[in-house]
Amino acid sequence: MNQKDYSFMENYMLSCMEDSAHDKEHIYRVLYNALEIAEAQKDVDFDVLIGACLLHDIGRKEQFEDPSQCHAQVGAEKAYRFLSDNGFEKDYAEKIRHCIQTHRFRKNNPPQSIEAKILFDADKLDVAGALGIARTLIYKGIVTEPLYSLLPDGSVSNGENDTSPSFFQEYKYKLENIYSKFYTQKGKELALNRQHSALAFYEDLFNEVSLSYKKGKSELEKLIKND
Amino acid sequence: MNQKDYSFMENYMLSCMEDSAHDKEHIYRVLYNALEIAEAQKDVDFDVLIGACLLHDIGRKEQFEDPSQCHAQVGAEKAYRFLSDNGFEKDYAEKIRHCIQTHRFRKNNPPQSIEAKILFDADKLDVAGALGIARTLIYKGIVTEPLYSLLPDGSVSNGENDTSPSFFQEYKYKLENIYSKFYTQKGKELALNRQHSALAFYEDLFNEVSLSYKKGKSELEKLIKND
Repeated sequence: MNQKDYSFMENYMLSCMEDSAHDKEHIYRVLYNALEIAEAQKDVDFDVLIGACLLHDIGRKEQFEDPSQCHAQVGAEKAYRFLSDNGFEKDYAEKIRHCIQTHRFRKNNPPQSIEAKILFDADKLDVAGALGIARTLIYKGIVTEPLYSLLPDGSVSNGENDTSPSFFQEYKYKLENIYSKFYTQKGKELALNRQHSALAFYEDLFNEVSLSYKKGKSELEKLIKND
Repeated sequence: MNQKDYSFMENYMLSCMEDSAHDKEHIYRVLYNALEIAEAQKDVDFDVLIGACLLHDIGRKEQFEDPSQCHAQVGAEKAYRFLSDNGFEKDYAEKIRHCIQTHRFRKNNPPQSIEAKILFDADKLDVAGALGIARTLIYKGIVTEPLYSLLPDGSVSNGENDTSPSFFQEYKYKLENIYSKFYTQKGKELALNRQHSALAFYEDLFNEVSLSYKKGKSELEKLIKND
């Protein structure tokens, strides 16, 4: 890819970014992850891969403003229109549309091309390890959701079987399970290298919080008189 | 303290809480931390300590809306007025005002009473360990600040000497240094038990991110042609 095309797509991406969990640095990390994963693959079209990485989240704003919209679908169509309208070949625009359409986990719409599989894995890698924890917590701040919920007995829920949203709920529902969902061997390997950080953090946080409630609540009960 | 007074102060606290990094669960954790720290102390007035913990952050909203306001000063005066206006003794209201006024780290205004020292430590304990990391990240989401800044050469800054706000900057400027700032032995002990989690998370996150930039940027340079 030449510098002109790269900068053209990069600038369009920058004009579409807003909140800080899916900010522009996420885009560069996904691009860098993808290039690392691609090293271990044959027959990768790097022009498609780079374009798809740069443009994969340009539909985020639309989904944020209206959660019934899927950013993968919106972004795929936006990218296709942007590329077609600006002199890129139809075949190139279609390949990028496929990558973006399938980068979000949906059972009935898996990535088919190698570039789509690499984008999928590179994006999931940014939800693995300490980074996945950090980005999820930042997002909880943006959407004003709490760290954890309390069980009916007043103790801290570990997130399993929770129905209301919280960081622990998302850890159990999503972050804990991503390590088995990679398409490439290299993507899985990189994710597994980071798994320990996420697990250790979740466990330490749960222990700090739940111990504090357990001890504190029984102390408090002794001190508050029902008269 | 009787149940009626406890609930009266608790309800006033709940009516003052808003954002999710300083939400009501932070208040209960500080209260529980304080009771644990107090166990190791003599001559603690638990009525003062419980009231001060419940009301210590009721000035947060005012500071959030106008950062020139100090939540410790605003909260102390709000608590004093609330207690005086509602039939609590003047001496009790004054003791609580002192605790709240001095719970925020300020060189010229250190906590004097044992209850004020315990509140200070219990509040700092909620910035130690994994909890400190989690709350700081949630707050970065609320105020839309990034995880890290880039150095002029495009590599990831570890936060040291950063001038623009980010999670790494706050880790280096504040979170890393709190472990030496406790007034009670028990508070310090509890904080040190949590120190490893915070340090490990920061290091893992920095390694994940900086390695990805380092490898990815040089790969990208090879692929982008300057023609």
